[in-house]
Amino acid sequence: MKKINKVLIANRGVPAVRIMNTCRDKKIKTVAIYSTPDRLAYHVFLADEAVHIGEAPPHDSYLNMEKIIKVALEKKCDAIHPGWGFLAENADFAELVEQAGLVWVGPPPEVIRLMGDKIRAKKIAQRANVPTIPGLLNVKTVEDILRWMKEDEVDFPIMIKAASGGGGKGMVRVDTAEELPVALEKAKSEAKKAFGDDTLLVEKYIRSGRHIEVQVCADKYGHVVHLYERECTLQRRNQKILEEAPSPSISDDLRQEICFTAVRLMREIGYHSVGTVEFLLDPKTNKFYFLEVNTRLQVEHGVTELITGLDLVSLMFSIAEGHPLPFEQDDIHPNRHAIEVRINAEDPKTFNPSFGTITRLEIPQGPGIRVASGVYEGAEVPPYYDSLIMLVMSAGADRSEAIRVMDRALSRGLRVEGIKTIAPLLLSIIRHPDFIEGKFSTRFIEEHHEELLSMVKEKTADDEVLKIAKYIAEISALGPQDWM
Amino acid sequence: MKKINKVLIANRGVPAVRIMNTCRDKKIKTVAIYSTPDRLAYHVFLADEAVHIGEAPPHDSYLNMEKIIKVALEKKCDAIHPGWGFLAENADFAELVEQAGLVWVGPPPEVIRLMGDKIRAKKIAQRANVPTIPGLLNVKTVEDILRWMKEDEVDFPIMIKAASGGGGKGMVRVDTAEELPVALEKAKSEAKKAFGDDTLLVEKYIRSGRHIEVQVCADKYGHVVHLYERECTLQRRNQKILEEAPSPSISDDLRQEICFTAVRLMREIGYHSVGTVEFLLDPKTNKFYFLEVNTRLQVEHGVTELITGLDLVSLMFSIAEGHPLPFEQDDIHPNRHAIEVRINAEDPKTFNPSFGTITRLEIPQGPGIRVASGVYEGAEVPPYYDSLIMLVMSAGADRSEAIRVMDRALSRGLRVEGIKTIAPLLLSIIRHPDFIEGKFSTRFIEEHHEELLSMVKEKTADDEVLKIAKYIAEISALGPQDWM
Repeated sequence: MKKINKVLIANRGVPAVRIMNTCRDKKIKTVAIYSTPDRLAYHVFLADEAVHIGEAPPHDSYLNMEKIIKVALEKKCDAIHPGWGFLAENADFAELVEQAGLVWVGPPPEVIRLMGDKIRAKKIAQRANVPTIPGLLNVKTVEDILRWMKEDEVDFPIMIKAASGGGGKGMVRVDTAEELPVALEKAKSEAKKAFGDDTLLVEKYIRSGRHIEVQVCADKYGHVVHLYERECTLQRRNQKILEEAPSPSISDDLRQEICFTAVRLMREIGYHSVGTVEFLLDPKTNKFYFLEVNTRLQVEHGVTELITGLDLVSLMFSIAEGHPLPFEQDDIHPNRHAIEVRINAEDPKTFNPSFGTITRLEIPQGPGIRVASGVYEGAEVPPYYDSLIMLVMSAGADRSEAIRVMDRALSRGLRVEGIKTIAPLLLSIIRHPDFIEGKFSTRFIEEHHEELLSMVKEKTADDEVLKIAKYIAEISALGPQDWM
Repeated sequence: MKKINKVLIANRGVPAVRIMNTCRDKKIKTVAIYSTPDRLAYHVFLADEAVHIGEAPPHDSYLNMEKIIKVALEKKCDAIHPGWGFLAENADFAELVEQAGLVWVGPPPEVIRLMGDKIRAKKIAQRANVPTIPGLLNVKTVEDILRWMKEDEVDFPIMIKAASGGGGKGMVRVDTAEELPVALEKAKSEAKKAFGDDTLLVEKYIRSGRHIEVQVCADKYGHVVHLYERECTLQRRNQKILEEAPSPSISDDLRQEICFTAVRLMREIGYHSVGTVEFLLDPKTNKFYFLEVNTRLQVEHGVTELITGLDLVSLMFSIAEGHPLPFEQDDIHPNRHAIEVRINAEDPKTFNPSFGTITRLEIPQGPGIRVASGVYEGAEVPPYYDSLIMLVMSAGADRSEAIRVMDRALSRGLRVEGIKTIAPLLLSIIRHPDFIEGKFSTRFIEEHHEELLSMVKEKTADDEVLKIAKYIAEISALGPQDWM
């Protein structure tokens, strides 16, 4: 057991703030790092200490492994928490952290490395009898792909993926044989550029697939417990923007099967910390296929916290310190439905990033609402990083209640001025009849984008906030009122 | 079954806002009423329609029964929800509402009347084998009291209570025989003044008693389910200011016994809607005694919502519409610990009300935090009404985690300027070692007031909010920063 008294958080924005909140609860001192444009960022103010780490480009700052570890040692930290994104799934960094005598708040480096290699991960899943998508590993040429399609009787569309990819990055869908040569070259160069490795695999494309993932936590003594599943089917450009738990698209029997399949895989690979096993569900056959393991805390962990009552970041620290899990599988009783939306600083029409000063920020509050903000009123959103500025979560006794609470949170409670966000698009999604009925696939936003945008225009959000602003102005102008 | 499409909310502030939030979720249109000083109040803006009801004094506005019902009829409402306080436990009003053909969103008027009479309520409890505090009903003279004390071998201190009282009002504690004549006169005149009825009862005073209450919900078909207990021992001037669930002071066996005793009593009196049975627990003997039934939604219902995942206001509407309970006792699985504090606009030293304009309002957000605000930045807090302006709630896997989340919410998240609030006192309470260990009685604040106030001075709350404010000023002064 090594008590963690001080931790360096190798991140910024929403994940850094999220982790610092739990650190404060656990009385763990925090050291923030920041790049030049982030010197006034929220995470800098919340930390007990903050150290300037470099210039704006991530490789100069949030990805600068040696410098981050040097700062952690200088500041006498016991541990490093990577958050999500940046170095969270970088096995080299995890190893360097441990070699420096620091605790890595995450899974074993060798497991990160293993699961980061999509080809090896898929082979291990197959060995553990976890169903995988029919495909071909180590693709080199167009001929390889066409031969495999013929032999295995696979039709277009197919999906080419980077072996080192993850989180939806480095994926190219191919609809016809004509597109294949160009698509293969594109996938190769993208993979090389993004991951420094152009190894590819190819898989059958599951139409109208649904993305179901299982949250798992495991201690260092072989206890592996699942915290049920999340449905993350709603994506734009292969990036999730709305997640919920439980999944509205699976039966209780299928839920049990998927969750225990995830536990089996995580036990097989010797996982510890919190982590997620992602599956693709074919709703036509109710068969599910292994996609990947996310060897880190995920953006959407909050919906699992809302249904289970657990703090996953607190669990990560406890496990890293060497504590056994404080519960058994039978102690986990989800008792509500939760939804999360990602408030990205983007134009809802084009998904182009939007940056600048947040001139006004009103944060939703009220029954069923939880918010995780990475910004404050007056903060600058710089153009260099992830566009996520806030998570808005809702919980209700059932899915319908959780949707209505989210509607209230987005339309009545949230107000962001000075930059654009995708909040209006998210509101139109949760008001769309197909979403309400639970009928959607990973292509929902792509297929309904125009319709969703037109809903934004037609439906007027509640305007009580504007009314209040007007009356505040009135009060200010008139001074104290004559009540008598 | 009568579908409620439009409801008049006969209240203001936190309860009115709370109910409107759920109405919005359930697509029930809302009509607000407001007094002259409340014309810019938050509940006025959130309502679909708002009607001016009279001048500032409550009997001209929020207690004006005939006018409220007239407005409800004119506005074609189906129902009236009374919130808490004002007319919520007024049986005459509930009857008038029903006579006007409107749905009363609450328990049957005759049950309100019965439980409002503390002497009849106590007799019914005794008949239902619910333990009651040894005492004398219908006290007239000092001699009555002294005779009863001798016969029943009761020692001082004793408690004199108004038969029509409730919610801690109209109670006088007597420590010696010498104090008795003056105390009896005081109780009589207070009872007469507050309730128009000077009937009194007297009870043995339970030293270091703990206040435990059971949340019950019941439909119109005799199904009664408890939603577990809340501990509301922390009070100032017999008014609760911090509540939590589950109670830290009872065993699981005692929990079962208290909860099912409450169910038995509510079944006996033919209750429907949500309601609470209050008990006093003698921690020395682990015996519990019936105090009263609150025939309404309580301020502290949110902690029960946080542990169960249910929306109690939604339940109230469903029950009032004639729906059966959508669950059985065995479906209720609390899975966390929750705490609520009442942010009252009062001087934390004197508890004198503080009023004026809220010049700055920052609302806590982050993991485990829920807020129910009755005000907005720029709002006026008028001097005429209840001092409650906001509820801050926290939830965690266990009590210790919930306390630490509350610490974060109050010290890092909350900022109210322009008026005084008791937030600093609440923060010092949750940091007090006795509170953290669960060792406190209803006299805790009284006994520790000086010490608690000195903690406020010694401990500095996090100042990151101030740091941010400073930097916002800097940004505003400098304009966009040079990042390149």
